Amino acid sequence: MNTQDKLCVLRRKMDETGVNAVIIPNADPHQSEYLAEYWQALKWLTGFSGSAGTAVVTQKVAGLWTDFRYWIQAADQLDSFELFRQGDTDVPSFDRWLINTLSANDRIALDGKMVSAAQAGSLKKDFAQKGIVVDTAMDLISDLWLDRPPMPRTQAFELDTVYAGETRKEKFSRIRKKMADNNADCHVMAALDDIAWTFNLRGEDIHANPVNLAFAIINMDKIYLFIDPAKVSPALGTALEADGVALFDYDAFYEKIQELDKKSKVLLDPERVSDFIYQAIGKCSDIIEASNPSLMFKCLKNEVEISHIRETAVKDGRAVVNFLHWLDTNDAPKTEILAAEQLLNFRKAQDAFIHPSFDSIMAFKEHSAICHYSAGPDTDLPLSPDAMFLTDSGGNYLTGTTDITRTVHLGVPSSQEIRDYTLVLKAHIAVATALFPATARGYQIDAMARRHLWQQGLDFGHGTGHGVGFFLCVHEGPARLSTLPVDVTLKPGMLLTNEPGLYREGQYGIRLENMVLVIKDRDTQFGSFLKFENMTFCHFERNLVDKAMLNSWEINWVNDYHQVVYDRLAPGLDAPVRQWLKEKTKSL
Amino acid sequence: MNTQDKLCVLRRKMDETGVNAVIIPNADPHQSEYLAEYWQALKWLTGFSGSAGTAVVTQKVAGLWTDFRYWIQAADQLDSFELFRQGDTDVPSFDRWLINTLSANDRIALDGKMVSAAQAGSLKKDFAQKGIVVDTAMDLISDLWLDRPPMPRTQAFELDTVYAGETRKEKFSRIRKKMADNNADCHVMAALDDIAWTFNLRGEDIHANPVNLAFAIINMDKIYLFIDPAKVSPALGTALEADGVALFDYDAFYEKIQELDKKSKVLLDPERVSDFIYQAIGKCSDIIEASNPSLMFKCLKNEVEISHIRETAVKDGRAVVNFLHWLDTNDAPKTEILAAEQLLNFRKAQDAFIHPSFDSIMAFKEHSAICHYSAGPDTDLPLSPDAMFLTDSGGNYLTGTTDITRTVHLGVPSSQEIRDYTLVLKAHIAVATALFPATARGYQIDAMARRHLWQQGLDFGHGTGHGVGFFLCVHEGPARLSTLPVDVTLKPGMLLTNEPGLYREGQYGIRLENMVLVIKDRDTQFGSFLKFENMTFCHFERNLVDKAMLNSWEINWVNDYHQVVYDRLAPGLDAPVRQWLKEKTKSL
Repeated sequence: MNTQDKLCVLRRKMDETGVNAVIIPNADPHQSEYLAEYWQALKWLTGFSGSAGTAVVTQKVAGLWTDFRYWIQAADQLDSFELFRQGDTDVPSFDRWLINTLSANDRIALDGKMVSAAQAGSLKKDFAQKGIVVDTAMDLISDLWLDRPPMPRTQAFELDTVYAGETRKEKFSRIRKKMADNNADCHVMAALDDIAWTFNLRGEDIHANPVNLAFAIINMDKIYLFIDPAKVSPALGTALEADGVALFDYDAFYEKIQELDKKSKVLLDPERVSDFIYQAIGKCSDIIEASNPSLMFKCLKNEVEISHIRETAVKDGRAVVNFLHWLDTNDAPKTEILAAEQLLNFRKAQDAFIHPSFDSIMAFKEHSAICHYSAGPDTDLPLSPDAMFLTDSGGNYLTGTTDITRTVHLGVPSSQEIRDYTLVLKAHIAVATALFPATARGYQIDAMARRHLWQQGLDFGHGTGHGVGFFLCVHEGPARLSTLPVDVTLKPGMLLTNEPGLYREGQYGIRLENMVLVIKDRDTQFGSFLKFENMTFCHFERNLVDKAMLNSWEINWVNDYHQVVYDRLAPGLDAPVRQWLKEKTKSL
Repeated sequence: MNTQDKLCVLRRKMDETGVNAVIIPNADPHQSEYLAEYWQALKWLTGFSGSAGTAVVTQKVAGLWTDFRYWIQAADQLDSFELFRQGDTDVPSFDRWLINTLSANDRIALDGKMVSAAQAGSLKKDFAQKGIVVDTAMDLISDLWLDRPPMPRTQAFELDTVYAGETRKEKFSRIRKKMADNNADCHVMAALDDIAWTFNLRGEDIHANPVNLAFAIINMDKIYLFIDPAKVSPALGTALEADGVALFDYDAFYEKIQELDKKSKVLLDPERVSDFIYQAIGKCSDIIEASNPSLMFKCLKNEVEISHIRETAVKDGRAVVNFLHWLDTNDAPKTEILAAEQLLNFRKAQDAFIHPSFDSIMAFKEHSAICHYSAGPDTDLPLSPDAMFLTDSGGNYLTGTTDITRTVHLGVPSSQEIRDYTLVLKAHIAVATALFPATARGYQIDAMARRHLWQQGLDFGHGTGHGVGFFLCVHEGPARLSTLPVDVTLKPGMLLTNEPGLYREGQYGIRLENMVLVIKDRDTQFGSFLKFENMTFCHFERNLVDKAMLNSWEINWVNDYHQVVYDRLAPGLDAPVRQWLKEKTKSL
C-alpha cells in the first residue's frame, strides 16, 4: 500500500467506528523518543521518518505536524500528508487545529498507550471545552498494518558496577526512600532508560539506544521486572533474583497493574507513563504524582561514571580527530555515507566502544542546514573542496555516551561563513565559561548563548543543549538548555551538551557541540555557584574564526582549550595526525 | 492586643473549631498585590508590613514566610512570629512545612476568599496527598480583629478617552470576542486593575493604586459592575448606564454569582479569582479556564497611551533630576523622609500628577541594601556625604505611571562601590540594548542582565523587571523579566522596568531602573525581532562608572543616552539645574 491507500483504509475504518479524527503520535508504550520499528506507525502511515511528529487524519485533511528541525525533511518525504510547520507563526498546534476544525460531540481516536498521561490529560481538557470527545481505547492502526515488523528481541546484559558505580540494590534503596518521602508504597515505571539505569541492565532493543523493552513495579517489599524471558540469560535471571527482582513476561505487565493492592499509594510520573497505565491504576489505587525518582538520580552522574566519562572524552576525541584528519588529508573520493563509515571505524578502534549513540549526521553543503539530516542513497553527496561540512555524531561506550558536532570548510570559507562560525563559537564560549548560581535553570544558560546571535537578528531552532545518559540514551531528561520554561535547576553531576548553531536554508549550517558536566565552583555571600567542566576534546577551526570578533577573554578561552585538546589527545595519536593536530591547535 | 495576645486568642479559637493550622495570606478578595488597610490582617496579626508574605499558625509554631526582598525588614518587625526565609536553601515552603508538620486528617483553615483558585487548588492537591483537609469556608480572623479599619470609600472617576485611547464599549467588544473564541458566554472579573482598565474607571481605594473595589460580570448581552453606590456620582452612573453597564452594590456580587444562568459557560482566570468565587460558580455553571482577556489587552499599551507615556517620561525625568540636583547642591540638613517629601514636591509641580505610584524608597547607607526599605520615624537616617543613597520612586499621572531608581554616592565612592555600580550598569545596558525574537520570554532577557553579575559570583534577589500599568498599578502582569519560568512572550506595546541591582547586606545597595517599551525592530529570515525603547530620562553617575570595565559599545550607549537625557529634559529645567545636568551628562 502507498500512503494514499493507507489513508483510504484508515478513513473507511474511521467511518465504520464513528470517529471524526485520529491522532497518531510518534510514540511507543514507554514514551520513548526513539522507537523500535514495531512502533513506527507514523512513518508507516505518512512516509515521514523524523524522530518527532504527530499525524492527524480527518475525512478531509491528513496533516503532519513537526518542529523546525524537520521542516525541510518532512517537506521532502511527505506525499499524501499536508505539512504543518509546528511552532511557525500562524500555524496552530494540532490540538488547536482540531478544536477549530471539529464540532461539539465529534469523536477523536487516540491510542492511550501511545500518549503520556500528562499529554492525554491536557488534550482531553482542551477538547472538552468544545465538547469534543477523546476515545483513548481505540487503536485504529494495528489492524491495518499488515507488514508490521516484529517486536525486538535482543539480549539483555548486566552493566557491571565497575562502570555503573552503584549496585541495583543501592538504587532500589534510594528509590524506596524517595517513595516514602512522597508517602507512596508502590512505584510503576515504564520509561526504558529509567528501568535500564535502575536495574543496571542494557540491551539493544532500540537502534542506538542500549535499552530493553520492559516495565517495572517497585513495592516496599517486592520488585517486579516485566521483560520477554527470551532476553534474559539464566545467569542474568539468577543475578536479578538474588537481588530480589521477580521476573515476569513483558505482556504480563498490563494484567499486573489491574491487580495492585487496593490500598496502594502508587507513585506515577504522568510524563513518563502512558494514559492507559495511569487510568488503569487510578481505577483501583491512589495515585501520587511525582517525577520518577530514577529520573533525577540517573541524570546526576556519580564519581565512578564521571571518571569514566572523562576517559571516554579522550578516546572519543581521538576518533573524531582521526576522522577530521582523514577528511582533510586523504585524497580518495568521499561521500557523506563513506564519511560516516570512516568515522565509525575510528570509533570502533577505541576501547569499550559498543555502537553509535545515534545515526551520525554527515552533512555537506546545503545539507548542513538541515539540523537532523540523514544521508541516504538518494541524497548522498560527494564531498568537494568548496563548501561547509557538518558532522554530528556520538558513541555508546561501556564507559559512557558521547555527542559531538564540528563544522569545517573543505575549501576556502567566505567572509559570511567565517562571521557565522565565529558568532556560533561566541555562543559556545558563553556557555563554556558560564558561572551561575545553584538556582539557575537551563533556559538562562541558553539565553546567554543565543544573545550573540539575536543581537545580529539571527537565531537557531533547537535547544542549546540536552542531557546525555551514561552508556544510555543520548537525549536524557530532565535538564536541558533551551528556550522553553522548563523548571529544572542545574545540579552538579548533570552531563549536558553545549551546541549552539546557525542554519541558512539552502546554503549551509554550523553547529559546534561539546559535552559539559555541571560542577561546583564556589560559595559566595550571594549563594553557591556552579560552572561547567568540558567533556569533549576536539579543536575548532582556526580558518573559520574571525579573531577581531572575539574579545580577549574569548581568545584566551580558545587558546587554552586548544592546548588542553592537544595535550590530552596527542599521546594516543599516530605521528602524522599528532603533527596535524599541533597545527590545528596553534594559538589564535 | 499585642501579637502575643492575638496569637493566644487565635489559638483558642483554633481549639474551639477543631483546626490544627491556619494559613493567613497577605491578600484581599481581588488577589491584589497592595491591600486596603481593611484587609491587612497579616500585618495586624504579625506586625510585618511588607507587601508579600504568608503566616502559618499551629498550636506550637507561629511562622511568617517572606521572600528575599523582605528578610531584613521581617527580622526587624517580627516579635512573636518565627521568620522563614522563603526561597533560601533548606527552608521549606509553608505548604511543604505544613505537610511535614501535620498528620493525616488534620485540618487547615484558609479563607477561600483570600486565596486564588489556582493556589487553593494546588494547596489542596498537595495536602490531600497526606490526607490533610483544607477548610476554605473558615475565616478565623475577622471575629478577633476588633479595631479593624473600615472599608475604603473613595470616589470613582472616569479616565477620559483622551488618556485611555479606547472607549469602554470598544473594550467590552474586544473582551466579548475573546470570550466567544473561548466558547464562553459569561466572564467574571475580580482583579481590580483589570476592572479599572476595562471600564475606564479610576479611584483611590488602595494607597498609590488608582483602583476601585469592585467586581464585574460580562455577559454577551449584559454587563454588571458591583461597586459601593456611594462611590459613583450621578453623572458617572448615567455615563456607565448609557454604555450598557448595570450597577449593583459591591456586596451583591456574591449573591449574583450564585444565580448565574445554569447553561452559562463562564470564562474564569483561576489566577485572578478567589477559590470562593471559583467554587461558587462551578456549582451551577461550566467553567472555562483562561486568562482574563483584559490582562493581555491592558498590558499592550495603545498608541494614545504610548504617546502619553513618552511625554510623562520627560516630566517625571525633570522631577527626578530636580531632586538629584537638590540632593547634590542644597546644604540644608536632610534625612530620608525629608528627601521623600522633596521629591514628591518636584513631582507635584508636573502636569497631570495625581499621586505617587508607590511609597518611595529613600535609602541611605546600609538601608539601601534593603530592597524594599521604607523609612519611618524610628529608622529615618540623616544624610551625610559619606555613603551610597538609593532612591526608587514613581508617579501616577493621568498620562501614565512611572517607576525609576537611581543610586548616587553622597561623598567619594570606594573602588568596590564603583566596581559594583559599573557591573549593575552593564546588566542594565544588556537589557536596554537587547534584540530578541518575537518568541522570547522575559526570563531570557533577565538572564542577559544577570550574567554580568553571575560571572563575578554576584546576584540579586528580585526580578530584573516587571510590567507597569497606564495610570494604574506600578506592578502589572502578565509579563516580567525574572528568573522564573513564566511562559509569557514579550510583545510590542508591553511596558516593563529594567532594574538590575546588587545588595551588600549591612553596607549598601545599588539599583538602576528605567522603564522600557517593547517595540518592533525588524524582520529577518530568522523571524521577527523586537527591542526596547527607553521610557525614562535621567542620567547615571559618571563618578560611579569604571570606564575600563565597559566595552566600546557600552560606553557609546551611555554617551548616547546621556545626550538624549540632556536634550529632552533641558528645555524645562531652571538654568542652574540645566547647567548641573550638562556636567552630569558629559561623555565618559
